[in-house]
Amino acid sequence: MKTARYHGPHDIRLEETAPPDVGPQDVRLEVDSCGICGTDLHEYRDGPIFVPDEPHPVTGVTAPIVLGHEFSGVVSETGTDVSRISRGDRVVVHPNVPCLDCHYCEEGTYRRCNASVAIGLQTETGGFAEQAVVSERQIHRLPDAVSLSAGALVEPLAVGLHAVRRSDLRTGDTAAVFGAGPVGLAVAWAAANAGAKRVFVSEPATVRRRCALEVGADTVADPVETDPVDVIRSGTIDGVDVAFEFAGREETIDDAIRSTKRGGTIVVGSVWNRQPGVDLNEVVGAERELRGTNCYGFPPRSFRTEFDAVINSLANGDVDPDTFITERIALESVVDAGFERLLEQGTDHVKILVEP
Amino acid sequence: MKTARYHGPHDIRLEETAPPDVGPQDVRLEVDSCGICGTDLHEYRDGPIFVPDEPHPVTGVTAPIVLGHEFSGVVSETGTDVSRISRGDRVVVHPNVPCLDCHYCEEGTYRRCNASVAIGLQTETGGFAEQAVVSERQIHRLPDAVSLSAGALVEPLAVGLHAVRRSDLRTGDTAAVFGAGPVGLAVAWAAANAGAKRVFVSEPATVRRRCALEVGADTVADPVETDPVDVIRSGTIDGVDVAFEFAGREETIDDAIRSTKRGGTIVVGSVWNRQPGVDLNEVVGAERELRGTNCYGFPPRSFRTEFDAVINSLANGDVDPDTFITERIALESVVDAGFERLLEQGTDHVKILVEP
Ligand SMILES: [Zn+2]
Ligand SMILES: [Zn+2]
Ligand SMILES: [Zn+2]
Ligand SMILES: [Zn+2]
Repeated sequence: MKTARYHGPHDIRLEETAPPDVGPQDVRLEVDSCGICGTDLHEYRDGPIFVPDEPHPVTGVTAPIVLGHEFSGVVSETGTDVSRISRGDRVVVHPNVPCLDCHYCEEGTYRRCNASVAIGLQTETGGFAEQAVVSERQIHRLPDAVSLSAGALVEPLAVGLHAVRRSDLRTGDTAAVFGAGPVGLAVAWAAANAGAKRVFVSEPATVRRRCALEVGADTVADPVETDPVDVIRSGTIDGVDVAFEFAGREETIDDAIRSTKRGGTIVVGSVWNRQPGVDLNEVVGAERELRGTNCYGFPPRSFRTEFDAVINSLANGDVDPDTFITERIALESVVDAGFERLLEQGTDHVKILVEP
Repeated sequence: MKTARYHGPHDIRLEETAPPDVGPQDVRLEVDSCGICGTDLHEYRDGPIFVPDEPHPVTGVTAPIVLGHEFSGVVSETGTDVSRISRGDRVVVHPNVPCLDCHYCEEGTYRRCNASVAIGLQTETGGFAEQAVVSERQIHRLPDAVSLSAGALVEPLAVGLHAVRRSDLRTGDTAAVFGAGPVGLAVAWAAANAGAKRVFVSEPATVRRRCALEVGADTVADPVETDPVDVIRSGTIDGVDVAFEFAGREETIDDAIRSTKRGGTIVVGSVWNRQPGVDLNEVVGAERELRGTNCYGFPPRSFRTEFDAVINSLANGDVDPDTFITERIALESVVDAGFERLLEQGTDHVKILVEP
């Protein structure tokens, strides 16, 4: 089958590889759509980060590996023990699996698992390939009202939903989102959907600011033109209840803190290339709090809560997938029309879907 | 009356000043004991920080001012409207007053008040003086079982109690405290008193490590000799539930984060001279959270909760004031035997009380 494999930074190759075997509890998908994620871009530009450069302790896999973890497909083969999923099912893949064996899994806090495995980063299989093989328990079926392209958005939307759950935002609160890449937009959507009375989004790219308004933001600011802290402070009594930092820059963590009211919460979801300076006096004096957010819940045997909530929202029309999908490309074009384009300064893309 | 007044950094002068007037709602105290606080040291070494260098918006006061906010005394005069307090009462002063007028005070979150006033930093009166005049509503009476010296410890102990409340530590959790100055020790005491099953304390000063064991710590580490993160990680399953950062150094915030389990909480209470680099990837990836803590609750008209809890603990013998008090000095010696000594590298003091 055709795959796009990651060999190292700036080195993704189109290759012909043997399709993975289907074990008793596995299903084989014909991949329909796979989104290119910020995590993939990080691996491409600065990696390997999550991709193991020595054999992974659980999967034994090392680079080269097939990237891609935001994917949907149609089931073409099922293992002998598979009972819940059938050939022909339209599905989306939950890419993270807790180990079920560490201290956290033992006490039932699977979300904290310190040996979880991520498909498309630490496994033989991944979404930038014609076929993928995953365990039945990582599969969510899509209802008829949700297209396979929309299915590829479930993962990034779930990241946004989880961030808003981490924030403890209550209906009627105000929120600010720094950075409107796909996940920042998902956060803006999830915050509006959670009943935030006003959602501010700070983002330099025009296209992304427009998308932010479409998914439910009330006010957008271009941080190159105006100080987003001024915009937010003048539109609230003493700052927002909750700020979300998804830009990963020292200035934005600072802006996020200063946009938040005393006692407010700053949820941080960025991956950081450099350790930023943080004005902790603003955290201590005003008793603010900085909370990390990462991915979504990892329940142990099935993956219901956050993925299912997003699938329901897509089925109900609460969020329009076409706002996020700015282009669809073939697997052959994944490097030039995908990774390289998203890394360009001032990209006018949000989510590019690869259709193997 | 004799006072020690702060004129600027490294400039505290013993002066004769007119005693402040007693308004209708005020009481006059003959100050018995006033602790020298880390905040006072900051003002002395690096200030003015909280001391206003132009007239304070609420009190109109500017340096020189009388420092000292951790004090007890005996009431010698009461204003015409004072009903709850009488001459001869032994009392301690709650030094922070919310404005009752800002957005936060209006909505009842007095703790967040952004125009609160601190006695001994932003007022005419302060504890390093023979007399102090404060509003009746800032007074807590001391029961017979609590000495006036112990009364001077109520404020720093309340800071520790509040930090533990901020952490949401639950009985049976594990805790680590970085920095065992008076407040770090108060945190260690409050965590043990809250039912923490194991309390680690990291502190370079021998005297302070010994005090930590006396107030309830189970394990102490000298960070100059050993890596406290190793000590804590090898004494827990995957780190503590809650870490408290009260040393104010970039290394200690890093140690505090790395000592905390996935999903754990780091409570930060230090005042920072420089903006530290913070490894936010450790906050994001493991979904930890950093919470600021500052002082204690500021209820609006009376100051019951946290101060009263500490006064009760002192009366019950839950905490021994003599563990904290390493010296008592006269007002005349406040600079040489007080401030200068506490600033010495490797000080062997915890709390020095000034007895005007
Ligand atoms: Zn992703
Ligand atoms: Zn696990
Ligand atoms: Zn103090
Ligand atoms: Zn106020």
